[in-house]
Amino acid sequence: MAEKEVRLFGMWASPFALKVEWALKLKGIEYEYVNEDIPFNKSDELLRLNPVTQKIPVLVHNGKPLAESLIIIEYIDDTWTEGYSIMPKDPYDRAQARFWAKFADDKDNLSEGAFVSWTSVECISATFGVFTSLGEAQQKMLQEAREAFKTLEQALGSKQFFGGDQIGYLDLAIGWFAFWMPIFEEIASISIVDNENAPLLKEWFARILDVDMIKTSLPPRDKIYELSKQRREQFLSGQIKP
Amino acid sequence: MAEKEVRLFGMWASPFALKVEWALKLKGIEYEYVNEDIPFNKSDELLRLNPVTQKIPVLVHNGKPLAESLIIIEYIDDTWTEGYSIMPKDPYDRAQARFWAKFADDKDNLSEGAFVSWTSVECISATFGVFTSLGEAQQKMLQEAREAFKTLEQALGSKQFFGGDQIGYLDLAIGWFAFWMPIFEEIASISIVDNENAPLLKEWFARILDVDMIKTSLPPRDKIYELSKQRREQFLSGQIKP
Repeated sequence: MAEKEVRLFGMWASPFALKVEWALKLKGIEYEYVNEDIPFNKSDELLRLNPVTQKIPVLVHNGKPLAESLIIIEYIDDTWTEGYSIMPKDPYDRAQARFWAKFADDKDNLSEGAFVSWTSVECISATFGVFTSLGEAQQKMLQEAREAFKTLEQALGSKQFFGGDQIGYLDLAIGWFAFWMPIFEEIASISIVDNENAPLLKEWFARILDVDMIKTSLPPRDKIYELSKQRREQFLSGQIKP
Repeated sequence: MAEKEVRLFGMWASPFALKVEWALKLKGIEYEYVNEDIPFNKSDELLRLNPVTQKIPVLVHNGKPLAESLIIIEYIDDTWTEGYSIMPKDPYDRAQARFWAKFADDKDNLSEGAFVSWTSVECISATFGVFTSLGEAQQKMLQEAREAFKTLEQALGSKQFFGGDQIGYLDLAIGWFAFWMPIFEEIASISIVDNENAPLLKEWFARILDVDMIKTSLPPRDKIYELSKQRREQFLSGQIKP
């Protein structure tokens, strides 16, 4: 049997692969999903397709591989130009969407000036920080995480979705928080995105999880819960390092 | 006097602001340069224009501010569509250019799977690592930095420029290494990009520094040398932290 024109190398529990699936589904593109056993047992094919970072997701389109979830989403929108529009049409809106996606994703930012750096903890790193620490360190990180999501909320404002009346690039980029965050919060007995701290974002959590395409493509909650719990214990016991 | 339509908030010694200047110059866009005294004495206007990351560069176009150098470069190419093309036209080439720019820029990458992370040291972080360490730690980082640039060289291959026959997005994104790297190497008595490790990249260093627009827009070498040396001493003595 011939290979499908589009293949996605992912991992069932990866939010980064899920974002790319969402983009493919919005466009109505058929694809084959290749589930990788990461991080300890990657296939030779993955290493061949993405030798530089060796990470999933990797999209293979007509034999040509591409890595990095947000870059893949832009590629999908650029290549299948018919149908659903993912990126904002206006150059300024597009740039702003990219800015917030970067803000949500960045682990850490080097200062963009004269190589004096400081730690600017953004959404994803702060969340993992809270999730993989305890006591005073966790409390400090919790403040930063709450601050980061409060800041992110500004990009939503009074809109239904970050993309406006329908989901777009930034919704795909950060939509996974809507599903994963309550799981993290439950496991670690903390609260980051709530009605007090980021009420608009909290409402958006409910709204995006109610979009049919999103709702029907999520991994099983109980399995994500178990895996997250297990990973947290491995972090806390020092078996794996952040 | 009326404000110029385009203003760039930068800092004379910042390679990140310089990239944006290069894009503006390639397009032939007139702009006003506002030099910020970073990191210790930022203007209120900068903090108002970029409250989220508070970093330079910030481009202000018709009163609307935008941050993050690579995002600004894409915005410039998207907005002034006439004349010089900065981004590759083909969606796959465009995605690849973004991938390599991210690879060169990222400080650190969170694993894109199941939140098991590892440290993937890319060009910029490895370079700063070598520059701000000593002894065994430096030797270890040096290996990683040499590896990172050797990897980056693959994106150049046998082309004149990363953009092909003329400079493009990726050349602008990483061109600053051509000027700064030999300064870092000289100060720290190390060698990262050389004829042995990355000969094609080393040739590209010479080639891009010979492009008129680039050559005529560089900051004074002696001042960058002095500032870099001073910053390094501050890092090594613990006065400022990486």
